Amino acid sequence: MSIENKTLHVALGERSYPIIIGRGCLDRIGLLLQDKLKASRARVVTNETLAPLYLARVQKALESASIASEAFILPDGEPYKNWDQLSHILTWLLETGAERNTPLLALGGGVVGDMAGLASALYQRGMPLVQLPTSLLAQVDSSVGGKTAVNHPLGKNMIGAFHQPSMVLIDIDTLKTLPEREFISGLAEVIKYGAIEDICFFEWLEQNHQRILSRETEALQHIIFESCRIKAKIVGEDERETGIRAWLNFGHTFGHVIETAQGYGVWLHGEAVAMGMGLASRLSVKERGLSEEESARLLALMQACGLPMDIPKIEADVWMRLMRHDKKTRDGQLRFVLLERLGKAVICSGVTDDAVTSLIKKSGKGSIDSATSPALAGFAQNDEVRD
Amino acid sequence: MSIENKTLHVALGERSYPIIIGRGCLDRIGLLLQDKLKASRARVVTNETLAPLYLARVQKALESASIASEAFILPDGEPYKNWDQLSHILTWLLETGAERNTPLLALGGGVVGDMAGLASALYQRGMPLVQLPTSLLAQVDSSVGGKTAVNHPLGKNMIGAFHQPSMVLIDIDTLKTLPEREFISGLAEVIKYGAIEDICFFEWLEQNHQRILSRETEALQHIIFESCRIKAKIVGEDERETGIRAWLNFGHTFGHVIETAQGYGVWLHGEAVAMGMGLASRLSVKERGLSEEESARLLALMQACGLPMDIPKIEADVWMRLMRHDKKTRDGQLRFVLLERLGKAVICSGVTDDAVTSLIKKSGKGSIDSATSPALAGFAQNDEVRD
Repeated sequence: MSIENKTLHVALGERSYPIIIGRGCLDRIGLLLQDKLKASRARVVTNETLAPLYLARVQKALESASIASEAFILPDGEPYKNWDQLSHILTWLLETGAERNTPLLALGGGVVGDMAGLASALYQRGMPLVQLPTSLLAQVDSSVGGKTAVNHPLGKNMIGAFHQPSMVLIDIDTLKTLPEREFISGLAEVIKYGAIEDICFFEWLEQNHQRILSRETEALQHIIFESCRIKAKIVGEDERETGIRAWLNFGHTFGHVIETAQGYGVWLHGEAVAMGMGLASRLSVKERGLSEEESARLLALMQACGLPMDIPKIEADVWMRLMRHDKKTRDGQLRFVLLERLGKAVICSGVTDDAVTSLIKKSGKGSIDSATSPALAGFAQNDEVRD
Repeated sequence: MSIENKTLHVALGERSYPIIIGRGCLDRIGLLLQDKLKASRARVVTNETLAPLYLARVQKALESASIASEAFILPDGEPYKNWDQLSHILTWLLETGAERNTPLLALGGGVVGDMAGLASALYQRGMPLVQLPTSLLAQVDSSVGGKTAVNHPLGKNMIGAFHQPSMVLIDIDTLKTLPEREFISGLAEVIKYGAIEDICFFEWLEQNHQRILSRETEALQHIIFESCRIKAKIVGEDERETGIRAWLNFGHTFGHVIETAQGYGVWLHGEAVAMGMGLASRLSVKERGLSEEESARLLALMQACGLPMDIPKIEADVWMRLMRHDKKTRDGQLRFVLLERLGKAVICSGVTDDAVTSLIKKSGKGSIDSATSPALAGFAQNDEVRD
């Protein structure tokens, strides 16, 4: 079966860029770099899992276009998305004589993209970034939109920068090697786009989730294209998240607490976001009149896709402390992305602490409290988070 | 003598901001923050030398406008402008619960401004930055234009970001406490503006350098205003240094080598830049037909201001290696900012390695070679800098 490449554009003036979606397109990276960036050299950041699968192929494609490249291989996993690894990438760029106009290619999932992205933002105050996402999560979400970051022990993605890529090249075939758990984790973000912005897409997912789980090529291309289309539209309207871009954080305020409280890597990002969307939909029923039926549809679709819905037990005081580190917090007041209905998100700042506490007290199994959470060591001297 | 505040504007669309220049205006910071940023809290980064001089005053001014603040005190000096200290600032921001809209105030010289600036660029992907420069160098140069950075053992300012401040507030009275050597170092950048862009200002400096060295208030306000005016104009035309902003690096390619080869802090930035401008003017005579007389006028003015002209002896191979790390390097070719005449800079990429080697072999006293330079440890395994 032949599937044509499709191209989307993220419209950001002089920072606009294409998203190219197709099969086998990793082999075209050399020509594309030559054509669009006039590159004669490149640097590649990837990880130890992906390097044996794709690095030689990417470097060969670069070489065929006379582009000299060198590669840096990260350890695999969210726990390595940190300040120290970022430092190693920057030192390597200097040691290998990368210049300000040398493109940096991020070959991998969300962790590789976020870290290579931040390194490219910081190296000599900004070098071109090319995203080559290989996980579903990275293809439908993190490779598009210019958010880059590393985690801090006190909060996820707390250190970062906005740095738009020069190009995003999505090779659908890379999903063939993606482990099942990671594939399913990525579906959380796909479902999110339907929930916040597009009821038709949401209904399409309800009807076609079996085709997606079987990884049918046409279904995959459809969900990637639609997800990128919705993300590109929102980012084009609000690059720096002063308004509607916050919709993309639906489920993330709760999800980040789960990731941070349990230690990075215990839950995959998409899994934590799915649990977060479950909590946010229940809060939406209470606060914004989302119907019980619509909330149930969202939960049903996530369960049908195999996403975990068993929220770990985290003590209420831990929830509240970590949520106050959320980047949407303003003047000490939490802000949530909720649903008015399926396909219509809204930003709410009037949710009381009591409402949140009541919600999370009803949720959760097992136990995480201040004494066992790795994230809370830093709070030892503080009675509370100030401000 | 009463001197009115003067205000300049850096015109960068939605990133535009005012530069306010006056006497005693640190006391107005609370009202200004309240008025322009609607701030109800703030964070201050300063250093151990400046904290006893100005911190209480700034915090009192904040308090009088009901702005709650906390302060982080860095060790003093260029050697501390590094990755580790940056990390400490970011952790402190998280620990004290700073939010994405909390303004970060940089109270100090170039090192404090560069580091607080980069921390503000990275914290939650960007928080507002307010520059309160207290050194001449910071007042006329580093606080304006949005360049932020830390040093890397392999190169100065190699890790950084563009992040424009929301406001620059220059209190001329802070120059009263500035040590003589630092004051003179700052004059190098002042002279630079005349040399690259404004022959009238250069001539004014030739005629008035005694008034400046005596720190006459009106003379100080004039050089700060003119320097900021020229910088604001250039930055407004080329924020990201794709063109003429590189003029501002006149003397800096050579200067950075001197700073890096000798170890950060041996020479003050302005001192190294002055030596670099000396070298660049001699290269300008050879390569761009600058007259011997004009080159001599530039050197004479720098000497009259007390700037050191004795370039340290650095081996030619060290010069060439470190210069290749310059951010202006493209496709392995060095690019220099030279003078066609006093008041007219030009960017040159056609200068041969031989011409540079010949120039630097004639310069220098003492000896720095690959074995003794702290910057070259990282090159031990490399025969040469690649690319």
